[in-house]
Amino acid sequence: MIVVIQCKDQVGLVAGITGVLSKEQLNIVSLREHVDKIENRFFIRIHLEQDADPQSLELKLQQILPADAVIKVNPLPEKKVVVLVTKEYHCLADILIRHYFKTLGARVLCVIGNHDTLQNICQRFDIPFYLVSHEQKDKEAFEEQLTGLIDKYSPDYIVLAKFMRILSPAFVAKYTGSIINIHHSFLPAFVGANPYRQAFERGVKLIGATAHFVTNELDEGPIIAQQIIPVTHSHTANDMMKSGKEIETAVLAKALHLVFEDRVFVYKNKTVVFE
Amino acid sequence: MIVVIQCKDQVGLVAGITGVLSKEQLNIVSLREHVDKIENRFFIRIHLEQDADPQSLELKLQQILPADAVIKVNPLPEKKVVVLVTKEYHCLADILIRHYFKTLGARVLCVIGNHDTLQNICQRFDIPFYLVSHEQKDKEAFEEQLTGLIDKYSPDYIVLAKFMRILSPAFVAKYTGSIINIHHSFLPAFVGANPYRQAFERGVKLIGATAHFVTNELDEGPIIAQQIIPVTHSHTANDMMKSGKEIETAVLAKALHLVFEDRVFVYKNKTVVFE
Amino acid sequence: MIVVIQCKDQVGLVAGITGVLSKEQLNIVSLREHVDKIENRFFIRIHLEQDADPQSLELKLQQILPADAVIKVNPLPEKKVVVLVTKEYHCLADILIRHYFKTLGARVLCVIGNHDTLQNICQRFDIPFYLVSHEQKDKEAFEEQLTGLIDKYSPDYIVLAKFMRILSPAFVAKYTGSIINIHHSFLPAFVGANPYRQAFERGVKLIGATAHFVTNELDEGPIIAQQIIPVTHSHTANDMMKSGKEIETAVLAKALHLVFEDRVFVYKNKTVVFE
Amino acid sequence: MIVVIQCKDQVGLVAGITGVLSKEQLNIVSLREHVDKIENRFFIRIHLEQDADPQSLELKLQQILPADAVIKVNPLPEKKVVVLVTKEYHCLADILIRHYFKTLGARVLCVIGNHDTLQNICQRFDIPFYLVSHEQKDKEAFEEQLTGLIDKYSPDYIVLAKFMRILSPAFVAKYTGSIINIHHSFLPAFVGANPYRQAFERGVKLIGATAHFVTNELDEGPIIAQQIIPVTHSHTANDMMKSGKEIETAVLAKALHLVFEDRVFVYKNKTVVFE
Repeated sequence: MIVVIQCKDQVGLVAGITGVLSKEQLNIVSLREHVDKIENRFFIRIHLEQDADPQSLELKLQQILPADAVIKVNPLPEKKVVVLVTKEYHCLADILIRHYFKTLGARVLCVIGNHDTLQNICQRFDIPFYLVSHEQKDKEAFEEQLTGLIDKYSPDYIVLAKFMRILSPAFVAKYTGSIINIHHSFLPAFVGANPYRQAFERGVKLIGATAHFVTNELDEGPIIAQQIIPVTHSHTANDMMKSGKEIETAVLAKALHLVFEDRVFVYKNKTVVFE
Repeated sequence: MIVVIQCKDQVGLVAGITGVLSKEQLNIVSLREHVDKIENRFFIRIHLEQDADPQSLELKLQQILPADAVIKVNPLPEKKVVVLVTKEYHCLADILIRHYFKTLGARVLCVIGNHDTLQNICQRFDIPFYLVSHEQKDKEAFEEQLTGLIDKYSPDYIVLAKFMRILSPAFVAKYTGSIINIHHSFLPAFVGANPYRQAFERGVKLIGATAHFVTNELDEGPIIAQQIIPVTHSHTANDMMKSGKEIETAVLAKALHLVFEDRVFVYKNKTVVFE
Repeated sequence: MIVVIQCKDQVGLVAGITGVLSKEQLNIVSLREHVDKIENRFFIRIHLEQDADPQSLELKLQQILPADAVIKVNPLPEKKVVVLVTKEYHCLADILIRHYFKTLGARVLCVIGNHDTLQNICQRFDIPFYLVSHEQKDKEAFEEQLTGLIDKYSPDYIVLAKFMRILSPAFVAKYTGSIINIHHSFLPAFVGANPYRQAFERGVKLIGATAHFVTNELDEGPIIAQQIIPVTHSHTANDMMKSGKEIETAVLAKALHLVFEDRVFVYKNKTVVFE
Repeated sequence: MIVVIQCKDQVGLVAGITGVLSKEQLNIVSLREHVDKIENRFFIRIHLEQDADPQSLELKLQQILPADAVIKVNPLPEKKVVVLVTKEYHCLADILIRHYFKTLGARVLCVIGNHDTLQNICQRFDIPFYLVSHEQKDKEAFEEQLTGLIDKYSPDYIVLAKFMRILSPAFVAKYTGSIINIHHSFLPAFVGANPYRQAFERGVKLIGATAHFVTNELDEGPIIAQQIIPVTHSHTANDMMKSGKEIETAVLAKALHLVFEDRVFVYKNKTVVFE
């Protein structure tokens, strides 16, 4: 069983929390705690050997924690996700494969694409695919269709697996803290369009990828995971894109794994990640 | 202030420990805990915002911990080390530079070499250098001279910074848990002499280095840190050795940093490392 | 167009080869050359801007090269492969995905499994799957069935994508230089069975994977690519296996990419890899 | 012996060059060639087994190369460098150590600091140190003092080893192609002052460093080498700076090694690096 708590910091929090667990005869397998001294914020993730009744334990914890505490006891091992895509296959295919072999740690409810390119691969894995074209309609109408579909499925997370449309502040606000994006650069370098062209022209020796929660600012939002892959002068902009796809796939997979195992806390524009 | 504890596992340890700290009004900045379920062993490292009287706190902790508990409260921030070398400069020079600029986290008491090659660099940094030749004497006499010198300085750790003599079980037993070695391979590959020649002949694509505590078995002992560096077909055995030296320097530096900050626990033939 | 040549070394080889290309008005985009001075062996890979008639060019090159020269002109861009599997999905699924989206650089002719676990995923991608059980028959009969199937397809390469049966020297000899294996360790560490259990017990801080051509010796053969992934004390043997699968997938994908682009030369027990 | 050539591309260059070498009975150990198709630019680096008379060979090569060809035959194995520093020791100390043990591949003629912090370490290695304060004088006067000193020594390269003053376009123009800088970020992310503060506030998971030639634009110029080091939420801005120094040291060391071995070509705002 996993217990995760975020609240303002004060003396005695760990003693209080672990005192409650100890009284319940729950043994701690591993515990990660972090305090952000600047923000005076407390984060803890506890892996317990035994299971217990979530509601009852949460109540007992609430009594010894500050009023602002966000407590998750025994979060469902399987999160529910909706995946948004455009045309590129690499991140979606990785998700579908892990889902099919039950190693994703989440259930893929459906895939929504603004092109039909990836419909066939979804069908091959018996995952519902919805085409919601952005063409011949304004952003509001487009997003209304998206939210209609998404809300039908009530996912825990919306994964932007190379979804190439910019979402409105209204859309992002509606699902705040639930949208995970994979960005094709080592943010904050090369924000915006055509990062591989930019990287090629700058002559960089590393190509990066960044998985992050989406907030209102384009390419901003709390970073979950980042990684890079080396490139050389012999890489064209197109070769850099190919290398980039490899690292995008790996970084998104890692970020989803961390989020689905409740290892990621979000606050302000940052994350605390207990790997 | 840092508190580190290792003992057998039982329910309520974290609650007990943090209860003591809380009563003393000590605030936890970060806490890392691990339980080895197979060995039923408990490890904790707590970074506290405030300082407290070490003896008094240790007594209070002892009262709520199992009898086998090893407790270190407020370990001295500066460990004392003796460095043993042969002819290769790279690890020693890195240690001397960090020591000189006060970023090593330890005080280098002296350097002992079985050759005089590195005497001059020690003199340039005002570090006592002792030549203890292994020639024209048996291992017992050689090691007697070493221990005589080492014991004069009473170091916390003995760092084998490319010391190329095999130490006897008696010597190792005398300083058990205190000897740190850098091994020129990704252990357990290429144990023994001439690992770069072996690596070259095997045509590997990665060269590694391993920092570990020394136990009786040659090239065995709990691993603290490991890292690798890529090589290609164009590397001769000599080029591999050069690449290897870069990674040896980095791995030993990292291992010493972890040990000197009390982030490494040893048990059986393994380590728990709270990075 | 790609030209690759391997032969014994002598003065004037590059001049001779590029002289032939120059006369044909073929422009060199990139050229990699390597001489193994110990073995006196010459390797070259030339990427040409234009195409030319392969047979005619090969003949012209033969006239200026030593008699032992192995010349490949304009190797088919698409290699043909047969994949052998047991139960683990990760490497096969990665191959099937890349194949389906035409980024593998090879055509997957069929998959042969000694269990039927991966039959369904092959069917989903319309790839023929053959079950050849190793049970209730001796190795000779088992391999006879394998070779019967393989020879029907005449592949350029046989990829062992976590195929967990040891192949006989006779089988390996029959397909010498064509069998690519992914090994679940940083060879030569942890050869043999249960490498993750071995790695766990040794307390290593890195888990590796090695893609190599298969020769008679178990876990020997020229190494094509290797990579590692960090692990910690918190990884169980099972967690190490999971991390290992990520890196196995990545290393095999890279090795296949290098081989399918004719970037890998084999000689003695080594490779020359022009990345 | 090393031969490096850069010129505009045309058919037959490799044939012409290697024809000349072959006639001189010079055997090629390794050859790297690259053509930038967009810029129509040709780069080659040839490692020859034997030595030959540089002037005579250069003349013979000129006759078969385009008029714009830049040819370096048998570049001196030991480059001459002047190092500019401010207060941080890590890059300078690494250079001094390698220099002292004759593994730098260059001769350090002198060190110039705008503070006297690093005077003592230079003295310990018998390297002349000059204090050129930037205080109480304008940039022009400051740089006049610098150039006066530098020109006295006629170095091949000027290494900015954490030199924290911005150099004027006039200064940079005077030494164009000869100034190597280590920048404390993964350029182009976090340009300008306080990159670690910026990185901390953005909550990145990787810290980078970039070695590059200096051109007029601040933090611009052809990139020679880049690398990153992982960081976590537990790193303060100060911790990130410490991690950054490790990677800065490693990246500058690698870049200098590449430059001093004539493996780096510069053109437009990029490099070709034959590792």
